[in-house]
Amino acid sequence: MTGVSPRERVAAFVPRNPAWEKKSREIFERQSFMRMIGVRIATLAPGYCELELPYRDDLCQQNVYLHGGVVTSIADTSCGIASSTLLAPDAGILSVEFKYNMMAAAAGERFIARGRVVRPGKTLTVAESAVFAIKDGVEIEIGRMLATMMFLEGKGGMQGAAARARRRRLSVWSTRVSAITWAI
Amino acid sequence: MTGVSPRERVAAFVPRNPAWEKKSREIFERQSFMRMIGVRIATLAPGYCELELPYRDDLCQQNVYLHGGVVTSIADTSCGIASSTLLAPDAGILSVEFKYNMMAAAAGERFIARGRVVRPGKTLTVAESAVFAIKDGVEIEIGRMLATMMFLEGKGGMQGAAARARRRRLSVWSTRVSAITWAI
Amino acid sequence: MTGVSPRERVAAFVPRNPAWEKKSREIFERQSFMRMIGVRIATLAPGYCELELPYRDDLCQQNVYLHGGVVTSIADTSCGIASSTLLAPDAGILSVEFKYNMMAAAAGERFIARGRVVRPGKTLTVAESAVFAIKDGVEIEIGRMLATMMFLEGKGGMQGAAARARRRRLSVWSTRVSAITWAI
Amino acid sequence: MTGVSPRERVAAFVPRNPAWEKKSREIFERQSFMRMIGVRIATLAPGYCELELPYRDDLCQQNVYLHGGVVTSIADTSCGIASSTLLAPDAGILSVEFKYNMMAAAAGERFIARGRVVRPGKTLTVAESAVFAIKDGVEIEIGRMLATMMFLEGKGGMQGAAARARRRRLSVWSTRVSAITWAI
Repeated sequence: MTGVSPRERVAAFVPRNPAWEKKSREIFERQSFMRMIGVRIATLAPGYCELELPYRDDLCQQNVYLHGGVVTSIADTSCGIASSTLLAPDAGILSVEFKYNMMAAAAGERFIARGRVVRPGKTLTVAESAVFAIKDGVEIEIGRMLATMMFLEGKGGMQGAAARARRRRLSVWSTRVSAITWAI
Repeated sequence: MTGVSPRERVAAFVPRNPAWEKKSREIFERQSFMRMIGVRIATLAPGYCELELPYRDDLCQQNVYLHGGVVTSIADTSCGIASSTLLAPDAGILSVEFKYNMMAAAAGERFIARGRVVRPGKTLTVAESAVFAIKDGVEIEIGRMLATMMFLEGKGGMQGAAARARRRRLSVWSTRVSAITWAI
Repeated sequence: MTGVSPRERVAAFVPRNPAWEKKSREIFERQSFMRMIGVRIATLAPGYCELELPYRDDLCQQNVYLHGGVVTSIADTSCGIASSTLLAPDAGILSVEFKYNMMAAAAGERFIARGRVVRPGKTLTVAESAVFAIKDGVEIEIGRMLATMMFLEGKGGMQGAAARARRRRLSVWSTRVSAITWAI
Repeated sequence: MTGVSPRERVAAFVPRNPAWEKKSREIFERQSFMRMIGVRIATLAPGYCELELPYRDDLCQQNVYLHGGVVTSIADTSCGIASSTLLAPDAGILSVEFKYNMMAAAAGERFIARGRVVRPGKTLTVAESAVFAIKDGVEIEIGRMLATMMFLEGKGGMQGAAARARRRRLSVWSTRVSAITWAI
């Protein structure tokens, strides 16, 4: 973008958590879906996250391109992990919403999603991601996401096993519970 | 929506392809990613598609809810298959872009995405999807998508094997090729 | 939408503010831009707002249809006022983000935006709006919005004159101030 | 964005129309709404458009900030005019959809929208815009748009007077006409 805000020029991405890298990597590693499809963190920095996904035959849509949902998944996660580097030590994070534009066929040997915080906030953070396909070493941008993330104070999240155990104990799932969970 | 357009009242979803159901099911079955995560078509009608996905431990984000990208994937596919019922016999379809709002935690035993054409067009079709989680038989809406689909005349798509073979023959992937592929 | 959530079936839009109607109308009347282009509230109910705008020659884009930004403005405001009916007495509201799909030319004598709360929350509320053009008494849906609104506790907003006066006293507008204002 | 596509590096924004600047300025000047609220083109280049809007009391929302719809309007137009520089001589353009994130209060003396083509295409073009408020000479980014534009071959659009005259002659506006107009 030709116009860069003062905020971007000072690059004010100072993590509030000294252990930001450990925390962000833990959040990523707890995402079983990322592991299952084979995504890894290629680069991690305050306000920035680059994810890499090799092509696989079982991740495709009808024309044997990567499924739009798969590409969106790595874009979303790159925004979420980039934003998570700015979390307070005891805070959690969730995606509020995103928009994704598919700009070219998702064809290539590898795919890279570069997520970046655009505007950090106390409650809401705006992030964007650009997704690239790599074929014979040439990168082409295949999509772009604009996303809103939410920070949840004092809800840093549980380790997988504890969360699963707690989920099993919940015998009643009601609209009321969901509304409380959501209405932070 | 309290306000319903005349177009919706007449429900003008008359398929142009007598074999619309066969074609839409084929498009769905060629999506290896849908098969891999365990999605099936629950209902299919002109302009409408309902998909169902049982919960699985390997499709989650850090809090052991279904990953936002997985939920978005079934919402996107429900919009695409709903739109595909209105394709001409020799036409193909791709997603141009979508926006998805996560409204509640994706927790439940099963998930249903109900995709619906909002506005059919010759080139562009607008569709929406509402995603529901089912827990102990109770449905709760957990997300909503607003999407744009594109119809590609005379590009009905190839069967998986043929497409894969052709893809392997392409030894050079360049911006030029991508631009041509994309710039329908 | 064929699939309706239990939440929608019980229509759980119970205002927290007994004076919700007065408050929502005040918020609307303080929007100088709505007044300037000639918008009025046609219907107001908990979780719902219908706005009406007569066609005007000075609100157009290059083909003498209503400018997309004008149509988006009434869609945004219909979502915001619909959501404002659910505000606590001392709370304020702002739009976080929205997506708008233009589905047909904005041509007609009058335009109606029907905004509706999809999912109310303590901090974030999801709303949607459908916009219709009326020509010779026939309605056609010309666009649809999916939006996220934010409730600001204890920030009910100031009357116009007081706000303007305060704004004039602020002699320095800095990134810092903006960040504080925004980072609720 | 750290990751820049080859396409962006070669800056492949070569206008197809030798008279691109004249055409883009004409499209802008025919937008009565831009004139009415006081927007002017500050910079115009292939694939790029910068618009400027001075603050006005009658363009506000309830807190005396610029109305979100007004800010969205200049973002949309900056995307549209930026894209229009790449039109074929006889082609027209319309906005298909956009998403806009409000990142800070729209407070300032002037507002600038910087629109830029992200991915040009034959039918669809993806563009983005960043909107800035200027207060005492300091710029702050207040919002960001991601948009889809459509090129309409052989539909370059009519001059305002001719279009208005033609519109008056249309005595019946029906769903059918709208569908034809839209379904390019």
